[in-house]
Amino acid sequence: MRQPSRHILSATLAACMLALAGCATPGAPVALETRSTQQLLEASTDADWRTPDPANLLYMDLDGGRVVIELAPAFAPEHVANIRTLARGGFWDGLSLYRSQDNFVVQFGDITEEGVPGRPIGSARASLPAEFDRAAADLAFHALPDADGWAARVGFVDGFPAARDDRRGNGRAWLAHCYGTLGAGRDMAPDSSNGTELYVVTGQSPRQLDRNITTVGRVLQGMELLSVLPRGTGPLGFYEDPSLRTPIRRIRLASDVPVGERTPLQVLRTDTPLFDAVVESRRNRRDDWYVQPAGHIDLCNISVPVRTPPSS
Amino acid sequence: MRQPSRHILSATLAACMLALAGCATPGAPVALETRSTQQLLEASTDADWRTPDPANLLYMDLDGGRVVIELAPAFAPEHVANIRTLARGGFWDGLSLYRSQDNFVVQFGDITEEGVPGRPIGSARASLPAEFDRAAADLAFHALPDADGWAARVGFVDGFPAARDDRRGNGRAWLAHCYGTLGAGRDMAPDSSNGTELYVVTGQSPRQLDRNITTVGRVLQGMELLSVLPRGTGPLGFYEDPSLRTPIRRIRLASDVPVGERTPLQVLRTDTPLFDAVVESRRNRRDDWYVQPAGHIDLCNISVPVRTPPSS
Repeated sequence: MRQPSRHILSATLAACMLALAGCATPGAPVALETRSTQQLLEASTDADWRTPDPANLLYMDLDGGRVVIELAPAFAPEHVANIRTLARGGFWDGLSLYRSQDNFVVQFGDITEEGVPGRPIGSARASLPAEFDRAAADLAFHALPDADGWAARVGFVDGFPAARDDRRGNGRAWLAHCYGTLGAGRDMAPDSSNGTELYVVTGQSPRQLDRNITTVGRVLQGMELLSVLPRGTGPLGFYEDPSLRTPIRRIRLASDVPVGERTPLQVLRTDTPLFDAVVESRRNRRDDWYVQPAGHIDLCNISVPVRTPPSS
Repeated sequence: MRQPSRHILSATLAACMLALAGCATPGAPVALETRSTQQLLEASTDADWRTPDPANLLYMDLDGGRVVIELAPAFAPEHVANIRTLARGGFWDGLSLYRSQDNFVVQFGDITEEGVPGRPIGSARASLPAEFDRAAADLAFHALPDADGWAARVGFVDGFPAARDDRRGNGRAWLAHCYGTLGAGRDMAPDSSNGTELYVVTGQSPRQLDRNITTVGRVLQGMELLSVLPRGTGPLGFYEDPSLRTPIRRIRLASDVPVGERTPLQVLRTDTPLFDAVVESRRNRRDDWYVQPAGHIDLCNISVPVRTPPSS
């Protein structure tokens, strides 16, 4: 019987990008611009990797494992400050993921129950300004050459997929809604989010949300713990049966966690020639499986590689 | 305590598009071009809906329910013919979904086991030509006005998301890899697929696969049964622990299933003014939640509505 098409997607590379351990094929010494993704990552040096600031990392501990989230204070300073306060106060501990809408988002926080008072937010602020975008001028925006239908330009800012628009004189930039993006749920008023109710994109990039809601970070590790949650059968993917909710053991800032309990993790820098070469290796696949290189890549098709530091 | 942001994504509309039942808000009598998606669907007539040919529908029955797939003989006639033969021979009955790669695909068929002979394919053909694309000339291609980075034009053909390229004189068209697209896994040789090993896209549209593999259809209903499958921890999302595989009870053509056991289902036609209005209502959201309409939509962000026929 024939093989079950292991090459279907040349996905060895994708797998390697998610978990570098196990990508053991030695890379041939070829020029940067013709190497495969795997070869490029194998040729990377420590300077190509960045260790996120523990004060910007949230650990969401579930029964199934840990989700590691990087916050983006450069884009949503007030929300990130509030989320840090909420995490320090143990706001989410014992709460749940209460919504999972197929091909869209999961959401967590303090779901309102009839007759049950909400959890107090302690010293966190109940109300925050909308932080849908920010001035682009003083941002290290590493643009992609690829066209994007949703925004004038797209690229990366310190590892975060982002977009910008300079057409109105004063350029604005914002985090793009890609797989793994973390946002702050709101009601009808643009300034009605305070960071207590957060969602993670689990489906096709819902870029229509860009500039309509405050995005606060992205998941670096553990997406597979969120993406498999059963889909809710209520409107918007809310669980009709509360027993389907996934309990959150606790959410902490990495900086508040003893060093020995932290998850060692590095993210590929997105402002380097190596990263440009990695993107190019995804834009035009070099492995023999592909007969028709795409010549294009969408912002949200780029997974920024994450690794366990070699020293740990 | 504030509401958990039920409006986060104006997702009532999205939910309605997936399951029209329950979308009870009466639509105000407004012009077609300014109506919300929900209002448009409520205003649809029977002529706006299409009942797929039962000979083109595959039912994949799992313990958790039924996945309904529509085959696309217009794009992959040889593969679809073979898949019909395989289904009639009960080829997949008792086999499994053996691979789930996060943000990518699930795959099913007859996984090769060391020392275990493969399942016979009966009168199906062991080898087929590659059907990566086809002539565009005689195809009813309903184009979107929206720009696409991957192809010269994108749009729909009888409900299937598709792309085309007329730049080389003889125009070619192909099914696009969107959420729910069904493809035929292959090995290194372009003509190494025969339809026994099939994959369904469960992640961000992997359009780089377009024209590199044969696409054969798309899932109309039941994606939430596939998208939640645990992610495999082996390379490419293969399950290292075979007990994690999801058994397939059976896969049949709807036309081979007694009428009383069929799943009544209709798909919104994609070649009508109503469909154009639905797409426009997603391109520029009309509900009050949005402060910044996108002015654009990507092909793979369009979910073609499916409904249970009102008569059934």
